[in-house]
Amino acid sequence: MLYKQYWIGVDLGGTNIRTGLMNDAGVILREQKEPTEAYKGSDYVIEKLKNMIENTGMGYEIQAIGIGMPGPLNPYKGIIMNPINLPGWNNIFLGDILKEHFNVPCYIDNDCNVAALAEASEGAGKDYPIVFYITVSTGIGGGLCINKRIISGATGNAGEIANIVVSRDSIKHSFLNPGSLEGMASGISILRMASEHGLKVDKAHEVFFLAEAGNATAIKIVDIVVDSLARGMATISHVVDPHIFVLGGGVSLAVPGFAEMIKARFEQYIYEVMRSQIAVKPAQLSDPGIVGAVYMAKMRIEREAYE
Amino acid sequence: MLYKQYWIGVDLGGTNIRTGLMNDAGVILREQKEPTEAYKGSDYVIEKLKNMIENTGMGYEIQAIGIGMPGPLNPYKGIIMNPINLPGWNNIFLGDILKEHFNVPCYIDNDCNVAALAEASEGAGKDYPIVFYITVSTGIGGGLCINKRIISGATGNAGEIANIVVSRDSIKHSFLNPGSLEGMASGISILRMASEHGLKVDKAHEVFFLAEAGNATAIKIVDIVVDSLARGMATISHVVDPHIFVLGGGVSLAVPGFAEMIKARFEQYIYEVMRSQIAVKPAQLSDPGIVGAVYMAKMRIEREAYE
Repeated sequence: MLYKQYWIGVDLGGTNIRTGLMNDAGVILREQKEPTEAYKGSDYVIEKLKNMIENTGMGYEIQAIGIGMPGPLNPYKGIIMNPINLPGWNNIFLGDILKEHFNVPCYIDNDCNVAALAEASEGAGKDYPIVFYITVSTGIGGGLCINKRIISGATGNAGEIANIVVSRDSIKHSFLNPGSLEGMASGISILRMASEHGLKVDKAHEVFFLAEAGNATAIKIVDIVVDSLARGMATISHVVDPHIFVLGGGVSLAVPGFAEMIKARFEQYIYEVMRSQIAVKPAQLSDPGIVGAVYMAKMRIEREAYE
Repeated sequence: MLYKQYWIGVDLGGTNIRTGLMNDAGVILREQKEPTEAYKGSDYVIEKLKNMIENTGMGYEIQAIGIGMPGPLNPYKGIIMNPINLPGWNNIFLGDILKEHFNVPCYIDNDCNVAALAEASEGAGKDYPIVFYITVSTGIGGGLCINKRIISGATGNAGEIANIVVSRDSIKHSFLNPGSLEGMASGISILRMASEHGLKVDKAHEVFFLAEAGNATAIKIVDIVVDSLARGMATISHVVDPHIFVLGGGVSLAVPGFAEMIKARFEQYIYEVMRSQIAVKPAQLSDPGIVGAVYMAKMRIEREAYE
């Protein structure tokens, strides 16, 4: 069988842009990576993005372009609001710009949703109907997939669990609710707690290693982080009751046994009948961005055809 | 056009059993209501249920039976665990019992999910893709529908928001998590707070009337209830981002302006971009049980045909 359909997937981050050409079989035929140079502003980045897509797709008839990138953004309209790590972007109609330039459909979603779909389609969640992906990194994000489709929600904020309340402490973090999950368990919050307690670490995951080695302060911080994630996941379970939580992101993947540790605590906060019924596993795909972006574009085309 | 398909919907509650015969057009042709007499145990109630279904469907070829009833139950297997208001029920394979007796498919789901589907199909949520139904009654329950389908979740506990944590107070209610939504905002918790503060009321909604009349204690309790529901809905919004919350249940429907009051507070706890984008409305159907049970049975048959 000859593959006749080709797709471009884009992972547009604050540090790097990666583009890939994928065929029907899910094989990436060609891949490019360039520094984003985000400080040069939106015009510059969009021009670079156009060139990379052009080169990556050269010689192939492309069905659609899928892009995963930092929000806030409107996935329905392809409008990028003002991502923290893409300075100077403000209400950019990126979907329309690329669609007009390349004359193919272009779909955009936030990087967490795209990673969630990649894990739900080819990764740790591929055997489960309802997959909830959580990234524990500098910040905390999430993505919900049901039957290999991203649930974006009314305003595109489904899965934006940074802002759910998990703690009885009133820690106010950024513009989020007091006691928010991101304020209690993100990389930046772990570093804040470490610093407050005089613990010297460069990276958030080092606190877990210190705890493992018996440091009492680190053990206390790890307990707060594990408990906050466990409570957040219990809440999510009482709302959508996923078959699996897939845990990704720099902090969680740097700590061996992270998923098991969270799972043990999480089970304390859910109904007895739910215990040991919900899987908690680490993300499997080392690089879900391009793959997930293509799946997302395919999903959106199918949905449009269906509706 | 002659209607050729007929369905039985059952609303099996702790107080009454109601059965209805519905045609393709959604018209209820025949309806029965009997006291449950739950104290007489499961055998007695099931026998009564069989007779009522028999009589309600008499002379018609039935496609399927749908039943909405109190959980905990397993909607996939049609097994009733041990509902608080149906004493003596314990792991009853009700789906199999009725399927064998009537030789038609029988589907069971909890009363909240069934009410959610009724509101999503014919009620306040009928124009919205993602509908989250919340009942504020003696207890608190919920149901999530996406594109007119109930999301039951891995263990049948999607929408079971009684147990989500909304408060920094550690109030322990029943076997739920400390600070749970049900412990802060259900009818029984409102009565508990009223009693603790020496407020004499017979029914939970009277506290709202006293607050309206300026009673300081009642105002304080109402504030806790409104704030807890608002926080819970914010959390739900950051997980599934519904297009609408539909508020049902005895307490919420007895208080004029309840939905507006909750909405105003709720908007304080969600991202700015989400504000005024998510509807909050009172339930519209006075009696969603039978209608919802039929929709649920239809949905399950379609799903089985599809998978």
